[in-house]
Amino acid sequence: MLLHNYLEKQKIAIDEALDTLLPPEDQFPPQLHKAMRYCLFAGGKRIRPILAIAAAEAVGGNPENIIQEASALELIHTFTLIHDDLPAMDNDDYRRGVLATHKVFGEAMAILAGDALLTEAFKILSLGCRSGLHKPDHIVEIIEVVAEASGSRGIVGGQVVDIDSEGKTIDKEHLEYIHHHKTGSLITASVLLGGTLAHGTNQEIEHLKTYGTAIGLAFQITDDILDVTGSSEELGKSTGSDCNKGKATYPRILGIDQAEGKKRELYQEAIHALHSFDEKADHLRELGLYIIERHC
Amino acid sequence: MLLHNYLEKQKIAIDEALDTLLPPEDQFPPQLHKAMRYCLFAGGKRIRPILAIAAAEAVGGNPENIIQEASALELIHTFTLIHDDLPAMDNDDYRRGVLATHKVFGEAMAILAGDALLTEAFKILSLGCRSGLHKPDHIVEIIEVVAEASGSRGIVGGQVVDIDSEGKTIDKEHLEYIHHHKTGSLITASVLLGGTLAHGTNQEIEHLKTYGTAIGLAFQITDDILDVTGSSEELGKSTGSDCNKGKATYPRILGIDQAEGKKRELYQEAIHALHSFDEKADHLRELGLYIIERHC
Repeated sequence: MLLHNYLEKQKIAIDEALDTLLPPEDQFPPQLHKAMRYCLFAGGKRIRPILAIAAAEAVGGNPENIIQEASALELIHTFTLIHDDLPAMDNDDYRRGVLATHKVFGEAMAILAGDALLTEAFKILSLGCRSGLHKPDHIVEIIEVVAEASGSRGIVGGQVVDIDSEGKTIDKEHLEYIHHHKTGSLITASVLLGGTLAHGTNQEIEHLKTYGTAIGLAFQITDDILDVTGSSEELGKSTGSDCNKGKATYPRILGIDQAEGKKRELYQEAIHALHSFDEKADHLRELGLYIIERHC
Repeated sequence: MLLHNYLEKQKIAIDEALDTLLPPEDQFPPQLHKAMRYCLFAGGKRIRPILAIAAAEAVGGNPENIIQEASALELIHTFTLIHDDLPAMDNDDYRRGVLATHKVFGEAMAILAGDALLTEAFKILSLGCRSGLHKPDHIVEIIEVVAEASGSRGIVGGQVVDIDSEGKTIDKEHLEYIHHHKTGSLITASVLLGGTLAHGTNQEIEHLKTYGTAIGLAFQITDDILDVTGSSEELGKSTGSDCNKGKATYPRILGIDQAEGKKRELYQEAIHALHSFDEKADHLRELGLYIIERHC
């Protein structure tokens, strides 16, 4: 199947799952449930859930069995977007091509909608045994992985250092800390979630982790490059905003050419990590290429 | 053991567990880990963890086996305090007798410290199998209970309706929605956590739920009354602040006398729910009385 069709098919399945799993808009209190759904369904490529699904395929699992758990990753991602956009943080007005949640629902509701999405993600993960599809010890394992990736030693830690670094001169190691934590940690957790729930061996899980770490950093370098070279229409948010905020980015520290080089090097690393996998890992390989060659 | 000594002993055990479980202050990024610990260790009675421990005792469990999981409840409670105090929410400057987290660390860090505490709570719960003390299916069950109590159908939902109701005239049912969700849900989850991890029977769990629901509402009515009658020194926050914000409270809707009456009625309900438990539930009974008779 062409990657484009694969992405489309998985996105539909994930969006259906998200719609079923989240409380409906009219459930009390409706303004909260509207706010929770607003940014979530404004767009988004669903890269993290799709990476989880492709990782499950790579170890021979049935991707349909992990759609719900994969979807929970998108709730965590959306929570980080809503909180990052807040006036006290990055103060961004647009996200996924529409006004940011705090611009539409107000700051208090944006904070609370983010909190509720984060919490809902763990609720959904905890439901994974009910279907009989997953063993409780696997569910506990992925909850640990996702929590570790999302908290002070993951996304939140990365965001703290990112905000703290604005307008400062930081070196490449410092920037990589931010990227690995703010972006890489949840991408790595996504492939680990898919691999674990689909009963990957310890060795397979190790290889998936190497793939995730490399492709996670490549993902963020691509974002950094697109912030300079991309069109705001395609990206659904202002371009040049990182630069305007004095944020450190790969192109700023290394220049565009070296940033491009680093991105391709990481892609090769990611592909190499999959060398012992057969053609069932082809979607994961293609996703790697898609991640570094996308325009939005 | 006198309740005072019991509370003191459990608080020490919980604080020790929290100190061990949370990343140290100097772990990178230090400003985040300082902010996470600041409000947590500024004070707090640790009522929720202690209720979990007393519920475990009530069903014949060893309270020492659930200290870690009980402590996670305090992280969730502290996350809600930090976010509730934000300028965009209740805009409170003091908490637990010291300046609120956002006043000391800034708004962005307060939002992120709250996010990280919430995430860390699920991380700690997920670690419950590692010790061999708990079965994975029990851990999954309590993660579901805690997530349900904390999200849009629990604490966050209650806070949304609370903020939305400021300055409006609301009726008793509406107020009870706020109290049951904002306060009651995590208190009920606390006794369910203790009862479940200590292998309570289905019937015992049902009784604990009834106890938790009644004592949770009684807890908040007591808070409402203390906001009118208490001393700000003892409470560690401004008194009369609910009234000044135009927040609906029990005394405001029903008057102090009827609020007192309702509180005692709920206490009786809670005690009645424990009628089939033996003396091992005495701490839970005494905690009920403490909750409605405290001065802070």
